[in-house]
Amino acid sequence: MMIDPIADMLTRIRNANQRLHKSVVMPASKMKVKLAEILKSEGYIEDFKITGEVKKELSILLKYKGKTKVISGLKRISKPGLRVYVTVDRVPQVLNGLGIAIISTSQGVMTDKMAKQAHLGGEVIAYVW
Amino acid sequence: MMIDPIADMLTRIRNANQRLHKSVVMPASKMKVKLAEILKSEGYIEDFKITGEVKKELSILLKYKGKTKVISGLKRISKPGLRVYVTVDRVPQVLNGLGIAIISTSQGVMTDKMAKQAHLGGEVIAYVW
Repeated sequence: MMIDPIADMLTRIRNANQRLHKSVVMPASKMKVKLAEILKSEGYIEDFKITGEVKKELSILLKYKGKTKVISGLKRISKPGLRVYVTVDRVPQVLNGLGIAIISTSQGVMTDKMAKQAHLGGEVIAYVW
Repeated sequence: MMIDPIADMLTRIRNANQRLHKSVVMPASKMKVKLAEILKSEGYIEDFKITGEVKKELSILLKYKGKTKVISGLKRISKPGLRVYVTVDRVPQVLNGLGIAIISTSQGVMTDKMAKQAHLGGEVIAYVW
């Protein structure tokens, strides 16, 4: 069995989004919270919050425009079994800028645009579009 | 006014697909027929046909899996006002292989995978995913 909490997070969001659910809950982690921060600042989700004292949970409030999903897709790129790293000149653009790539750099987790501006490469966590 | 028949084709398909229409008709051209051939061979549309004697029309039969759209999105990349060309080492991958890039090469119009296999760069016509 391979454990990939980020893939699990993306799958939960994808499924809840597909069913037009208002929110989705999952076990929290620092990395997941960082991804949620990016999803919020980039306008892909309404909001998120962390709940629970012993076992922290991350609750994400999904975003829709009427019946239209704001998130069209999420894709895990780097995986525990096959890590994907890029140098700054190879930071990917998603659908020619229509989506975002989430990059884990030495200066933190950020979008492809922020990584390019900061001249940083890193691990390509996921694509969101 | 800027005329971009390929952008028009993509828009017509996008709109018809959004409304779950069975088919969509547009003025035909050699390039549009080549794009339709690729969309068919890559499984994004059911079929296409060319009709009309004086003014040729291209009719595209859209593809769905139940209520799910097979085409999630189409995006024009190279445009009349800003042509986008790539060398073979820069042929783009769309959503890490989930979609296709359509490349117009010296050997004809083909997908990103075919262009890479043939060691060809060219004009990046569109992304489909």
